[in-house]
Amino acid sequence: MRDGTDIQMPLWLTKRAALTPERTALASGGGNMTWEDLESQAKVTARRLAKLGIGEGDRVALLMQNGPDMAVVIHALPFLGAVFVPINSRLVPSEIRWQLADAGAKLLLYDLPHRETAETAAETEVLSWDRLASLKPAEGPLRSHLHLGELHTIMYTSGTTGRPKGVMLSYGNHWWSATSSVFNLGLDMNDRWLVCTPFFHMSGLSILMRSVLYGITAVIHPSFDPAAANRAIREDGVTIISVVSTMLAQMVEEQGGRGYPDHFRCMLLGGGPVPKPLLERCRDQGIPVFQTYGLTETASQIVTLAPEDSLRKLGSAGKPLFPSELRIMDGEEEASPGQPGEIVVRGPNVTLGYWKRSDVTREVLRDGWFRTGDIGCVDREGFLFVLDRRSDLIISGGENVYPAEVEAALLAHPVVVEAGVTGVADKRWGAVPVGFVRVKPGEVVTEKELVRFCGERLARYKIPRRIHFVRELPKNASNKLVRRRLPELLEEKEEKR
Amino acid sequence: MRDGTDIQMPLWLTKRAALTPERTALASGGGNMTWEDLESQAKVTARRLAKLGIGEGDRVALLMQNGPDMAVVIHALPFLGAVFVPINSRLVPSEIRWQLADAGAKLLLYDLPHRETAETAAETEVLSWDRLASLKPAEGPLRSHLHLGELHTIMYTSGTTGRPKGVMLSYGNHWWSATSSVFNLGLDMNDRWLVCTPFFHMSGLSILMRSVLYGITAVIHPSFDPAAANRAIREDGVTIISVVSTMLAQMVEEQGGRGYPDHFRCMLLGGGPVPKPLLERCRDQGIPVFQTYGLTETASQIVTLAPEDSLRKLGSAGKPLFPSELRIMDGEEEASPGQPGEIVVRGPNVTLGYWKRSDVTREVLRDGWFRTGDIGCVDREGFLFVLDRRSDLIISGGENVYPAEVEAALLAHPVVVEAGVTGVADKRWGAVPVGFVRVKPGEVVTEKELVRFCGERLARYKIPRRIHFVRELPKNASNKLVRRRLPELLEEKEEKR
Repeated sequence: MRDGTDIQMPLWLTKRAALTPERTALASGGGNMTWEDLESQAKVTARRLAKLGIGEGDRVALLMQNGPDMAVVIHALPFLGAVFVPINSRLVPSEIRWQLADAGAKLLLYDLPHRETAETAAETEVLSWDRLASLKPAEGPLRSHLHLGELHTIMYTSGTTGRPKGVMLSYGNHWWSATSSVFNLGLDMNDRWLVCTPFFHMSGLSILMRSVLYGITAVIHPSFDPAAANRAIREDGVTIISVVSTMLAQMVEEQGGRGYPDHFRCMLLGGGPVPKPLLERCRDQGIPVFQTYGLTETASQIVTLAPEDSLRKLGSAGKPLFPSELRIMDGEEEASPGQPGEIVVRGPNVTLGYWKRSDVTREVLRDGWFRTGDIGCVDREGFLFVLDRRSDLIISGGENVYPAEVEAALLAHPVVVEAGVTGVADKRWGAVPVGFVRVKPGEVVTEKELVRFCGERLARYKIPRRIHFVRELPKNASNKLVRRRLPELLEEKEEKR
Repeated sequence: MRDGTDIQMPLWLTKRAALTPERTALASGGGNMTWEDLESQAKVTARRLAKLGIGEGDRVALLMQNGPDMAVVIHALPFLGAVFVPINSRLVPSEIRWQLADAGAKLLLYDLPHRETAETAAETEVLSWDRLASLKPAEGPLRSHLHLGELHTIMYTSGTTGRPKGVMLSYGNHWWSATSSVFNLGLDMNDRWLVCTPFFHMSGLSILMRSVLYGITAVIHPSFDPAAANRAIREDGVTIISVVSTMLAQMVEEQGGRGYPDHFRCMLLGGGPVPKPLLERCRDQGIPVFQTYGLTETASQIVTLAPEDSLRKLGSAGKPLFPSELRIMDGEEEASPGQPGEIVVRGPNVTLGYWKRSDVTREVLRDGWFRTGDIGCVDREGFLFVLDRRSDLIISGGENVYPAEVEAALLAHPVVVEAGVTGVADKRWGAVPVGFVRVKPGEVVTEKELVRFCGERLARYKIPRRIHFVRELPKNASNKLVRRRLPELLEEKEEKR
């Protein structure tokens, strides 16, 4: 008896192009592209990549700006059975080099704005989009089908342990995420989903996946601009947009109380805690905010607040989407309603695990239950309230900053012997990292020098905004850094400034 | 690595009731029922069935009128892991008895209008809904989860071989069917889907499945009445309705060119060939008809005409839904565009196979490809045109009549030695069966007697409208009946009348 094992289906882009060839797939400053056009471009691109020897299971890293070109490459890879490795364009060359090596990427494809970074970073083969476009496509058959269990994406995310880890997402993870979302948000054939978060994050990538499955248009902005986003809603028929809290705040500010047209039906808000006054302001202005909770490891949202509850449960992230499940764990016990604990989730959109890190995978993924490391509680009606992202995670303008990674950069400096990093509230970014270091007795280094040093190793948003020199860092009995006690140190230090 | 194998999830009704407890699940003449109420009633019903010893894997047959009670039982069975065996209420006791025995049903549950039939039919345990409702619910745990590969339904359908076969549909078949549909038709949280086709057919049952997955209301009419259906659209907020051609014709007639309100977005039309003038009339009146093709074996529609093509491709059933596939086979070769052949389909909504008929299953289901036995062709753009249901199938008022089954009934009469059945066009029902018999030399039987005789063995819609006595039936070299030549005989005979 077949049991849903190993479900096979046509490649999504091919299926979509067959169903609705003339509908608009992508809209951008450069014009519109139909599904038929997108499929034909993706196939030519796949044949060019094949010319370079890219095939089944090869990892292809992309360092590109959001736009139709990047979408074409993402859709080209499945025709070869190759795996998509998105590279955060804000990373510095040394960070990129590490990820390329870890993923075993066969190729790093970049576009013009990223030439210097790509060429500095890469020990693997690098190729520009322009150069790729000049290659003669290879002959021979392309893949026509996929299995839901196959690997589609390796997306890097850092963690408490310092080095980034590659989150493995299967076709099935993307599929189930898109299904969960549609059972919650509904679907209109005229939907246009605005992408102004990067394709190298789940938020942006998941729109591309939904768009091909639903047959709706992804309207792509190269980057986020609140006025442009508002204009796209008012004048370009955008019905849904995915944002993080700082983006929402800027859009509401820019829109200045004018309200949005009726066709605009969803402001999908993810990426961490949201200030309550902002939610209240949206409510008062009738802005349809859907708060969500999700991670790279859940292939986008896994918990979302349903429309009918958005006012009554302001500040909640909602309930786990169909067919996912949620538990709040206090150690090995399930917490009672109202009691905080670790957020643990299960569902077919949950990652296959971490690339080449079966040790960590085993730790966080048991019987399908994924331990997020985030803290939350569930009320008597089952609504999730996220109290704190992983106790030490700093969310800065929607990007995740992991203190351990920043500490590792500081510790790489020859005179630094101990380092601790924590977040401090920031009006514009939500939070920014701040560092504490203890230097070798007798040695001296300036804050400026350390910042410069970090700049070589870390993306700009991860660089500590301030670095304090201390004589000792808070540690526990086994001499491990106690990050949650850093804020006390901060108060002390910042008062003195 | 997990590969989509054996996907587990919470029971659908429980999940739905947790997500949107206060939305309306069912609306009927008897009032509204919320998801919370439906879940609590389904659980009590499950506990009562448990009291009777119903448990894991047991087949429970239902002979009930469409309505909230039947919906409650259908939703109760998954709490026990029991399998739903719908019984067509138009069958006669001997037909029902056969299906109960074949399914190995542990219980036949019926409601008041079906008491006599049920009690006459059953050799298994029978119980009325009223009697069930008086039982004290059992204690003990109910199931909370399901696997998509598990068996949900055994639905009987006849075939070319005489005896009905039990089509096995898994939870996954229903799930994927609902997903396919939403990726095509879209979903609005205010959708209300009118059920006026029986729950014992896929058309009705699939609405119940979609309703629990989507969280929309199933508006249930006990039977089809064109005026009531039109009123439900005009006054009761119905946005979608599933119909067959004869129902559509009656609704259009009754509506009398008044047109439908804007909120009405889909007339989902299945169940066989549609007269082109009817489609043209709908087009002229702006009625949003979506033509579809599907079978019990595909858990409802598998091919549907997308909105943008409905005018251009009038009469086509459309393209295979995401993620299904379609082939037209001329023997073992794929037919070229425009060439007719057998319609063969593949997709995760395709049946697990026939209950206890692995021989037939192996014949029609290979590598996931299901041979429908229907004839069609695909044009250059990939649109399916269904030319003929299984060459010998008669579709009468949306019900399938299989000549072999009717012939078997005629042959059961002691003086009939040969019998052949074919369909003849009928203004009201689309088609009706007509029989040809050869009787033993020297014996005599009247048409009236044969009709009476069939009436004991066959549901009314299967009884031949006319029976002709012939000296021989068209046969091939191996002496097998050639049904497709019966119409010639018919012309001859009917002219003489």
